[in-house]
Amino acid sequence: MNERILDMVSSPADLKVLTNEELSILAQEIREEIITVASETGGHVASSLGAVEIILAAHSMLDCPHDKLVFDVGHQAYAHKLVTGRLDEFKTLRSYGGLSGFTKPDESPYDVHPSGHASDSLSVALGLAQARELSGGDEKIVAVIGDAALSGGMAFEALNHMGQTQTPMVIILNDNEMSISRNVGALMKHLGYMRASTQYRETRDFVQEKMEKSGPFGTALANFGRNMKESLKQFIIPRSMIFEQLGILCTAPIDGHDIGLLRETLAAVLDTDGPVLIHVVTRKGAGYAPAVADPEKFHGIAPFHIATGEVKKKPASAPTYTSVFGKALVAEARRDERIVAITAAMRGGTGLDAFFEEFPDRFVDAGIAEEHAVGLASGLAFGGKKPVVAIYSTFLQRAIDQIVIDSALPNLDVVFAIDRAGVVGEDGPTHHGMFDIAYMRMIPHMRVLAPSDEAELVHALHTALALGGPFAIRYPRGAAEGAPVPDEPEVLEEGRARVVRDGGDVAVLAFGRMVSRALGAADILAQRGIDARVVDMRWVKPLDAEEIARAAQTKLVVTVEGGVVAGGAGEGVLGEMARQGLCAPTLNLGIQDRYVPQGKVDLLLRDLGLDAEGIASSVEKRLARLGG
Amino acid sequence: MNERILDMVSSPADLKVLTNEELSILAQEIREEIITVASETGGHVASSLGAVEIILAAHSMLDCPHDKLVFDVGHQAYAHKLVTGRLDEFKTLRSYGGLSGFTKPDESPYDVHPSGHASDSLSVALGLAQARELSGGDEKIVAVIGDAALSGGMAFEALNHMGQTQTPMVIILNDNEMSISRNVGALMKHLGYMRASTQYRETRDFVQEKMEKSGPFGTALANFGRNMKESLKQFIIPRSMIFEQLGILCTAPIDGHDIGLLRETLAAVLDTDGPVLIHVVTRKGAGYAPAVADPEKFHGIAPFHIATGEVKKKPASAPTYTSVFGKALVAEARRDERIVAITAAMRGGTGLDAFFEEFPDRFVDAGIAEEHAVGLASGLAFGGKKPVVAIYSTFLQRAIDQIVIDSALPNLDVVFAIDRAGVVGEDGPTHHGMFDIAYMRMIPHMRVLAPSDEAELVHALHTALALGGPFAIRYPRGAAEGAPVPDEPEVLEEGRARVVRDGGDVAVLAFGRMVSRALGAADILAQRGIDARVVDMRWVKPLDAEEIARAAQTKLVVTVEGGVVAGGAGEGVLGEMARQGLCAPTLNLGIQDRYVPQGKVDLLLRDLGLDAEGIASSVEKRLARLGG
Repeated sequence: MNERILDMVSSPADLKVLTNEELSILAQEIREEIITVASETGGHVASSLGAVEIILAAHSMLDCPHDKLVFDVGHQAYAHKLVTGRLDEFKTLRSYGGLSGFTKPDESPYDVHPSGHASDSLSVALGLAQARELSGGDEKIVAVIGDAALSGGMAFEALNHMGQTQTPMVIILNDNEMSISRNVGALMKHLGYMRASTQYRETRDFVQEKMEKSGPFGTALANFGRNMKESLKQFIIPRSMIFEQLGILCTAPIDGHDIGLLRETLAAVLDTDGPVLIHVVTRKGAGYAPAVADPEKFHGIAPFHIATGEVKKKPASAPTYTSVFGKALVAEARRDERIVAITAAMRGGTGLDAFFEEFPDRFVDAGIAEEHAVGLASGLAFGGKKPVVAIYSTFLQRAIDQIVIDSALPNLDVVFAIDRAGVVGEDGPTHHGMFDIAYMRMIPHMRVLAPSDEAELVHALHTALALGGPFAIRYPRGAAEGAPVPDEPEVLEEGRARVVRDGGDVAVLAFGRMVSRALGAADILAQRGIDARVVDMRWVKPLDAEEIARAAQTKLVVTVEGGVVAGGAGEGVLGEMARQGLCAPTLNLGIQDRYVPQGKVDLLLRDLGLDAEGIASSVEKRLARLGG
Repeated sequence: MNERILDMVSSPADLKVLTNEELSILAQEIREEIITVASETGGHVASSLGAVEIILAAHSMLDCPHDKLVFDVGHQAYAHKLVTGRLDEFKTLRSYGGLSGFTKPDESPYDVHPSGHASDSLSVALGLAQARELSGGDEKIVAVIGDAALSGGMAFEALNHMGQTQTPMVIILNDNEMSISRNVGALMKHLGYMRASTQYRETRDFVQEKMEKSGPFGTALANFGRNMKESLKQFIIPRSMIFEQLGILCTAPIDGHDIGLLRETLAAVLDTDGPVLIHVVTRKGAGYAPAVADPEKFHGIAPFHIATGEVKKKPASAPTYTSVFGKALVAEARRDERIVAITAAMRGGTGLDAFFEEFPDRFVDAGIAEEHAVGLASGLAFGGKKPVVAIYSTFLQRAIDQIVIDSALPNLDVVFAIDRAGVVGEDGPTHHGMFDIAYMRMIPHMRVLAPSDEAELVHALHTALALGGPFAIRYPRGAAEGAPVPDEPEVLEEGRARVVRDGGDVAVLAFGRMVSRALGAADILAQRGIDARVVDMRWVKPLDAEEIARAAQTKLVVTVEGGVVAGGAGEGVLGEMARQGLCAPTLNLGIQDRYVPQGKVDLLLRDLGLDAEGIASSVEKRLARLGG
């Protein structure tokens, strides 16, 4: 490993002196580095392997950071990190205090924007290009966007706008023929027509053949792409007519693993006086056989064994909330044929695989299109169905208006199953589900449940479907608490909390995952002579007014939630006390008006003072301040 | 008026027995009714006049409410209201307790969904169509969407999805060649190419000629469209290739004022086994010369004189917040060339006409595309500009995720000028700006200002631009308070409130427009022997901790805001008191977890207990409960 080109690359400028052959060797080295590191850290392996040549070609032709390379969802950008001075830190990928798994301006001047949510790159890039026009600058703006991200409406809005303004910029469409779970949408189908073209098929077959020849480390890739260039001509139809009709010049599909061809194409279009789209065909997981064989598994993967691609087994733990939700929904759907499940391009991620298998007709994948997913759910509900929309907390932020106007205002039977609520871990600030309590409880007609374990989740889902109306159920990423899952779900009494530990000194009103931490805190406090009641509030909305009144009789009311304090459930408790004319010293614990970095969930919760020790010590301090 | 066909139409079934000629006469009667009523109530005249024949044709071919006619932005649906049993109530349009200016399921079984925000109809319609497929029903689903609404990404997401699923449904594209202010986007340009076609031009010229022949009541329209049919054939190219490429069958453009042709076209496509788009050319304001001449003015208009189209003058009042903002921004832009103004298809509505005139290069209309508008602003800020994004409170709900991820996380200099904050009046529940305080204050890095009059607004804008970082400034619709506008704006001290009336019994902490109401309440309370301090909080975030501490020394802390209490500024005040270890009886006034109906702002505020008398009486009651 000592003779690597990679070790000599300290900035993209170093790429400019390399030949195409050397760049291809570098690509291979980068793949090995990505696979080696990600096998320890976990990460978005498949996308990043697929985009290596695109990134090397772009950086060898651009002059970043003066020029701007904008990634749509930065998890494809590992190669970008490796050639922009972050090789030594790369092993800290996605860890606490380490390199982000996405682009992050704080981390490097080469990272343009904090990518993480799909479909925003074209808007950001167009803004940068318009800023350049206003300032009379000469920087090139290049956006790299995957085919799946194009299904997001925001990307279309940007295409529509740039087609009109004709602002010069380059879009590299990284078409790997798959979104995270499966292709959805007519645009994909349209790309599919193009895929039927001879040229596209030749390109794809060639790419595929190379993949098949690769060992686990893809050795065949080092001599990559030379003979492609002869057989493929750029700028030949069929180009994508949709883009052309929107006023965006579009190349014919080219091999996205052929560095020479990519560079020639970029050279040909970088000075075009309007928007240009380079249609590039890549293979997700390129250069690593296990990732090519199962790119969905390798979309975001835990640490794995390099030789086999098998995920390193952790000691058996409780099932995930996600999988408990998935099973519970199947059970509900067997009892009620009106139930329809909706995902936004995250079938596996939201635990809906089994539902899809059993009820394919009642399963809808709306694509990366959260706004539409919620509007569609509303239409289904108007049509007498009971849609359950399963979307991660952070991505559901895309559809708040549709929840407010299309679902909640007409008081429809729509259940929002909000997965990945609270701190999610290694994906960091763009992915934590910090806001759902605040954005859901502000909405009239909406009821909000925060189950504290997997049994509660089953009851919560049943309750939402039984009571009807717009309902939000929020639950965290990862392993649940190990509570036995009930055979028969119950309808929870509306607005009724449950006391999970009695005590008279202080009352800890906890929401969702924070209940187990609160119980831990109560144990610690008990050792320090403080007798804490712990209440699993169950309902964020409506709150249990009686239990809050009882809490106000103790020395200190403590609220603990896994999201932002501003607008959160704790403030709701304060509001309820005020309504009742009660005054009690109150401590609102949660995320205090800050974004949360990446790292293991337990570490992050500790930093936020939301682990058992942090909660206990905050309570102690406040009691001391109160002169207790 | 006694012999009107309109008076004999009590439901759409009555249309089925009418000939095309009779339907054309009915269309004329409906126009007169719309103009007569809207001249008294104000309303969305231009769109509704343009869609009369579309609606009559659709209802004469459909069997609603079994079939579903879904409107995108229901303000085009006045004719729909008139033929679905609401003629007698039509004069109550948009008034308190009267008919909604949009479709509203509570109002009529013929109204499918509460339309109000653009671009959601296709999702709702597809959901209805999918529900039908699951239930084995036979209802037809028809959506009516304007060309401008197609620029919203949500509409594209739905087109993309239905192109894939091939679910049978019909889209009527009501192409009137204009969005609310001006055409934006390449899709419009694409439609423009089609408009260059001979057939399209013939259609348009014919429509135009008829318009020009019309008197103010459009008498020429009664004999409408007979000779068009001969010259125009449906299903001839050029069809819109974009829709076709998305898998949606598309007709050639037809005359949207020719009832016979519309009916024939509908008959031809209603049983198609996949999605079909009927491209219909209409004229906004058709049949009323003043509205044809200035459709933007007649998009949403106040009561007007029928003969001239002149708006009935109200007694001179203060300038609107909107216009003060527009002038202040021009002044700021003269001082700082980095400032760029962004609107989402509401140039006039957000007061940016003067800015556009003076700085056309620094003005961006992103179209009905709020997500993109915010992403674009972030790109401009990354590029060193200082974007000011002016969007109505209710529509900015569309872009919360982009504010969280693209603007606030990287701590960019983006100012959100939130117009129409709080209760807006006659547009009703889909348009009130109830949520912006809650959804903005939950966001880290965000600072939020709520100016209490037009002078404060000028200072607030200056402050946001001077301090930098993500900033939200919220201000209401309509006339400001009449405060003298300062020549030189000041930088407001961060997190510092101002006492506008001193008093020792209770402290009223008021936000934005509520300050003037709070002052009125203080006068009333003074007469009842209660001495109220009134504080203009100025800052929703950060709050003035000192002023809150001072307030907690009185008998009662009162917070008053124009948005939802759940997650609002009042809860923030409670949170701040709790943080300081303060306990004081507190009354949180605002919108108490409900949607707000339509009506004049003062009436609505009275109902919400947010006028001076309501505030005073709530304070009195609470004081009585406290045993004061």
